[in-house]
Amino acid sequence: MTGPNGQRPMPPMAERSLIFPAAEYRRRAAALQGEMAGAGLDALLLTTAPDIFYLTGFLTRFWESPARPWFVVLPARGAPVAVIPAIGAELMGRTWVSEIRTWPAPDPADDGVTLLADTLCALVPAGGAIGLPMGPETHLRMPLADHARVGQRIAPRRFADATAVVHRVREVKSEAEIDKIRAACGVADRAFDRVPDFARAGRPLAEVFRDFQIALLQEGADWVSYVAGGAGPSGYGDVISPADSRPLAPGDVLMLDTGAVRDGYFCDFDRNFAIGRAGAGARRAHAALYDATDRALAALRPGMTAREVHRVMAEALTRAGVTPAAGRFGHGLGLALTEWPSLSEADDTVLRAGMVLTLEPGVEIAPGRIMVHEENLVLRASGPELLSARAPADLPEIDR
Amino acid sequence: MTGPNGQRPMPPMAERSLIFPAAEYRRRAAALQGEMAGAGLDALLLTTAPDIFYLTGFLTRFWESPARPWFVVLPARGAPVAVIPAIGAELMGRTWVSEIRTWPAPDPADDGVTLLADTLCALVPAGGAIGLPMGPETHLRMPLADHARVGQRIAPRRFADATAVVHRVREVKSEAEIDKIRAACGVADRAFDRVPDFARAGRPLAEVFRDFQIALLQEGADWVSYVAGGAGPSGYGDVISPADSRPLAPGDVLMLDTGAVRDGYFCDFDRNFAIGRAGAGARRAHAALYDATDRALAALRPGMTAREVHRVMAEALTRAGVTPAAGRFGHGLGLALTEWPSLSEADDTVLRAGMVLTLEPGVEIAPGRIMVHEENLVLRASGPELLSARAPADLPEIDR
Repeated sequence: MTGPNGQRPMPPMAERSLIFPAAEYRRRAAALQGEMAGAGLDALLLTTAPDIFYLTGFLTRFWESPARPWFVVLPARGAPVAVIPAIGAELMGRTWVSEIRTWPAPDPADDGVTLLADTLCALVPAGGAIGLPMGPETHLRMPLADHARVGQRIAPRRFADATAVVHRVREVKSEAEIDKIRAACGVADRAFDRVPDFARAGRPLAEVFRDFQIALLQEGADWVSYVAGGAGPSGYGDVISPADSRPLAPGDVLMLDTGAVRDGYFCDFDRNFAIGRAGAGARRAHAALYDATDRALAALRPGMTAREVHRVMAEALTRAGVTPAAGRFGHGLGLALTEWPSLSEADDTVLRAGMVLTLEPGVEIAPGRIMVHEENLVLRASGPELLSARAPADLPEIDR
Repeated sequence: MTGPNGQRPMPPMAERSLIFPAAEYRRRAAALQGEMAGAGLDALLLTTAPDIFYLTGFLTRFWESPARPWFVVLPARGAPVAVIPAIGAELMGRTWVSEIRTWPAPDPADDGVTLLADTLCALVPAGGAIGLPMGPETHLRMPLADHARVGQRIAPRRFADATAVVHRVREVKSEAEIDKIRAACGVADRAFDRVPDFARAGRPLAEVFRDFQIALLQEGADWVSYVAGGAGPSGYGDVISPADSRPLAPGDVLMLDTGAVRDGYFCDFDRNFAIGRAGAGARRAHAALYDATDRALAALRPGMTAREVHRVMAEALTRAGVTPAAGRFGHGLGLALTEWPSLSEADDTVLRAGMVLTLEPGVEIAPGRIMVHEENLVLRASGPELLSARAPADLPEIDR
């Protein structure tokens, strides 16, 4: 560190990095710094797993432990500085980040507060603004009381909202990122192809969830951060519950939804299966969902808003004579299971080329009974390119 | 809701619940309310997955999506109130919580702020204090800007730190909870027994990690929230990295560490294996770690501090002629992979009967090369009861 407001040179081209070449991270840092300049921010403070992975390549499941906070500071110019627990020094040392400051966490007396505040004071002029994501779909992954302590120590420097800075940069994926998400989708495609091997009448849903996770790992997932689903006559009650022990029964519609992870990138899509013969209502709902997705795929272009894409799908469902479910019909995807924007009536985000999105229309089959359908895509200048293999047009029947 | 400061009756005994009988959650609510009374808190606001699962039984992997905040408010008297996204209403409706208020999240204009503020104002008298965990090992899982907005709306009510309230209650496990953690440990015990089936020279560490996760699922894990490990000649460089593609080689020490989840409860322990013949240094380090753990198991009693248990292990390692690693030598365990306290020099938490802890001493074999060893236990009035099957005294050699 070269002193207050000191710019340090970017590390040389030959520095080590993880997952991607260092040039990819350098491009990301520059893009963030460009947005920061526009927002009048003198530094950016990142505290969450996806934000820190995005900038540094620091990828670990150790975020599962809430014991320690982690910080990365990106100054207005120059390279990022990691301010992290000593237990992470080895792994961070294998990324492109060359300036790594550590403390012996957890330290109940001072868990990085002094080290972070000193780092911010050295990088940001007095009166400067330090960006921190504070808005929708963000949270601060550090103790709230420690955040207040840092705020006191860095005064007259202040924290300012940097949600838009991070969102506008992260939401447009590079080709290298798109390749990673495509690979994660391929894992799920292959695992979904194997569902007929282990889902049949009489098997408890909990066992089906286990076998599906095993299939995802066998097909190349590094880990499986998310599996949900449901099963019931012609539909299911919700889409976020863990599995129960109820055995599948003929006439059930089984839905499986997964966020499998490969190299830190997620897929997020689901598939429906009829156990035995599909009922007329289930077939009709599935066909309507398939058609609504087709219409969105045909209409989707950069410049549309998230709200407009929701409307395309909702209107298609209504025209098909089914009831659109409440809630959003898709969202962003990448370093987290769900990213902004929301394809919903409430979201007027303008869609841009390079965004990776899910299309996820849902229908209400009966009160408290729904069916959902999901695909993953990247939005190109000319329209969407599917990353998941398109679901079959007709609800597949298994265990017939 | 019956008005400002209104107490609603607890739901009847026959209400539905998940994972545990409703009486277990009612006991937890009463215990939290007892601590809240001592701390002068008029309500408690919970926002994280483990805190909300603890009080309500609401268990879902949907927390993986950062899109929506979730709130549960426990008033000073009476039953908890859930203030949650509509997508969670059906699952929360299957818990013992009878008062569930929802909004159509995500809503960029008002993502639960008004509903949460109104709920707090109805439950807490003006000038009252609303507890929120703000201290070590906590974070606030909602956008920081929305937290500030809620704070403005509820004035003159104020937020106050409730870390100790939650920690003192959650850290002492009920027998029902201990049974769940024992079951999670059993899953890992059986999976570790199968490591010799898939770990051998020439196999990349990434494949070993996949097979280990598959074994955990086959042995009964609902999902695998954490696997880490390392491999190298006589030890490994760190314990938090994801697997790389380097093949295992004769003379390597392989360590696998897992937080497998069953019914929402974690295990967290590791095992070491020599690939082929174990070197003298690795055997010596493993024996020293085993002995240090034995000494802690013999000494551990309620009333000791976390620091004293660390010292027992550090002194045993030093006496054995090896170098204790930096950092903590164990921690709490239960609804998260790691809970407080830390068995470290910095933590003077008094240990109590009913705490579930890990013992996790580490040695530095050479600069940047370590070996760690971990067991899970519950502390009884008479001393520790192991929840993991004790590791073998001698470093096991596989693929000989």
